[in-house]
Amino acid sequence: MSTPARGYAAHSAETPLEPWNFERRAPRPDDVAIEILYCGVCHSDLHFARNDWGMTTFPVVPGHEIVGRVTGVGSDVSQYQVGDLVGVGCMVDSCHHCAACDDGLEQYCLEGFTPTYGAPDRQDGSMTYGGYSDSIVVSERFVVRMPDGIDLKSAAPILCAGITTFSPLKHYGVKAGHKVGVIGMGGLGHMGVKLAKALGAEVTIFTRSESKVAEAKKQGADHVVISTDESQMEAVAGQFDFMLDTVPVQHDINPYLNALTYDGTHIMVGLLDPIEPPVAAFNLVFKRRVLAGSLIGGIPETQELLDFCAEHGITCDVEMINIDQINEAYERMEKGDVKYRFVIDMASLKEGRAA
Amino acid sequence: MSTPARGYAAHSAETPLEPWNFERRAPRPDDVAIEILYCGVCHSDLHFARNDWGMTTFPVVPGHEIVGRVTGVGSDVSQYQVGDLVGVGCMVDSCHHCAACDDGLEQYCLEGFTPTYGAPDRQDGSMTYGGYSDSIVVSERFVVRMPDGIDLKSAAPILCAGITTFSPLKHYGVKAGHKVGVIGMGGLGHMGVKLAKALGAEVTIFTRSESKVAEAKKQGADHVVISTDESQMEAVAGQFDFMLDTVPVQHDINPYLNALTYDGTHIMVGLLDPIEPPVAAFNLVFKRRVLAGSLIGGIPETQELLDFCAEHGITCDVEMINIDQINEAYERMEKGDVKYRFVIDMASLKEGRAA
Repeated sequence: MSTPARGYAAHSAETPLEPWNFERRAPRPDDVAIEILYCGVCHSDLHFARNDWGMTTFPVVPGHEIVGRVTGVGSDVSQYQVGDLVGVGCMVDSCHHCAACDDGLEQYCLEGFTPTYGAPDRQDGSMTYGGYSDSIVVSERFVVRMPDGIDLKSAAPILCAGITTFSPLKHYGVKAGHKVGVIGMGGLGHMGVKLAKALGAEVTIFTRSESKVAEAKKQGADHVVISTDESQMEAVAGQFDFMLDTVPVQHDINPYLNALTYDGTHIMVGLLDPIEPPVAAFNLVFKRRVLAGSLIGGIPETQELLDFCAEHGITCDVEMINIDQINEAYERMEKGDVKYRFVIDMASLKEGRAA
Repeated sequence: MSTPARGYAAHSAETPLEPWNFERRAPRPDDVAIEILYCGVCHSDLHFARNDWGMTTFPVVPGHEIVGRVTGVGSDVSQYQVGDLVGVGCMVDSCHHCAACDDGLEQYCLEGFTPTYGAPDRQDGSMTYGGYSDSIVVSERFVVRMPDGIDLKSAAPILCAGITTFSPLKHYGVKAGHKVGVIGMGGLGHMGVKLAKALGAEVTIFTRSESKVAEAKKQGADHVVISTDESQMEAVAGQFDFMLDTVPVQHDINPYLNALTYDGTHIMVGLLDPIEPPVAAFNLVFKRRVLAGSLIGGIPETQELLDFCAEHGITCDVEMINIDQINEAYERMEKGDVKYRFVIDMASLKEGRAA
């Protein structure tokens, strides 16, 4: 039997998010029912709410950085019990049987993973609704455990911003002795700095503005390079083993390729558009450099990251908001006015409901 | 004491190559003096002779696919003796002390390698002259040994066309069970097919023209895909572990990226220009795909390749020419009218000299 839920939804690209009552599916034997405590606010949420990518089905309940408490488990659930503190990220299902799923890389599922919001459920075709709500029902495989002692509020963005940067750093074996450049200092970039540092790398933040140097150092960067200063960019030519490029808008990557060693790797996690200005092939060929992409991370490595963050005391820098501030938060995100992630305190939804 | 040499040189971008007498440097203690028997004709030779890249110092004696016989060795030479059959490829020197040189990857020398022709010698500043000549003097480290039984004529192009395709196939660990696509069927492409097959891979040639299918099969391809046929390209989406892209002119790589598996790698060895149409970042990000470049190969792996070719009976398909046919050969190369590499029989130069 489906259960009533309450959340905030966008009903069209042009209207603000507003309170909405809807139904969550009846839990299946492998499902975990979760009361949502906190939900991070990702740029993708804004893009979906406004149908920027032309693929939104309305109404949409955004939110895929979910932290909550287990309120019920299906008969086949073995890893979670009522009361456990858990998380749900960008995926709630996949095919379970392809090479990628077998490797714990559900984000590359050959049949396509099921996003946490705005997609049909694989079994009953009902729409998935995200974390701007009071509860969610998710298959056990796509639930992760909050490690003891982790700060739940600031852990929420680890489930998207964190894993998006951690997954490629792990995949490419970033470790002590490596020089890593991080391009862009938003939600992803600031997590990339913390994680690369915790993995032992020497980290340089590339920023366009002198005004961000102090903040970059505060984030733990060993060095800061002003990317708009050609002499500074030339001075670091051939220096970096990895670039973690979190910039979501078109930008010239050639000066960054030039800053890589031979065999160096430029990892794109922010941009989805055509790469313009175009990549100069000689920047790759003459130094055997690599241009790579990476998408969020698999469920096992998301759990690994949460444990890693708890162990190293890493959290996301967050600004807490109430759910009724979400539209204002979107406006501030568009201006880059957030350090570095908004997180919704979902208690505010219940209070609103009670009111 | 320098020694007189004879070759064919271009004296300007607008004039044909013609006979030219010049001096080779006096051998140094680590030098090997070589009588040139055969020299392959690479597209780069044509570009340098015509100053297409704006970096040519005239007169230029092209040629960097050199096979010959040792005629003298310096006092410090330990690996070669008079009479040995040897080869010289695209490089004749490097810094010898950087990380790349230490790794036997002299092509990525951090101080830049010394090309076989058209560059100043690192020690005395004299110009290097290539293999369209009767002799050459090269430091022992940049000389490779012709294995017993290899066909010397058709081995010459292994030193550039061969190693350019072999180096990335080895670096990325291509082996049995892998599906490899080869794009372009010229000097590089046809060697790429033979080498990927010999490494155990299942090989598909991508060609724009139905008329090349029979030839592609003859080269040993397991499959042929007509790249201009959208339905054929869609049918191979997500299939390939590697693409070896030998095309030297701008082309849309997005349909080939789409044909890679998740974690698949597109290796560019032909293009040096800006990549246009632009790479769609989502083609990399959504499947953790890799776009890589690769440049010729190091000296140790060039020796490994020669031995591998001898062991597997792999040779380059060549058309022999006399040195006085070089200008005509350039014209035919521009039209793609060669299967697959011209090789100059340098005996023709001596005969010309005697005449």
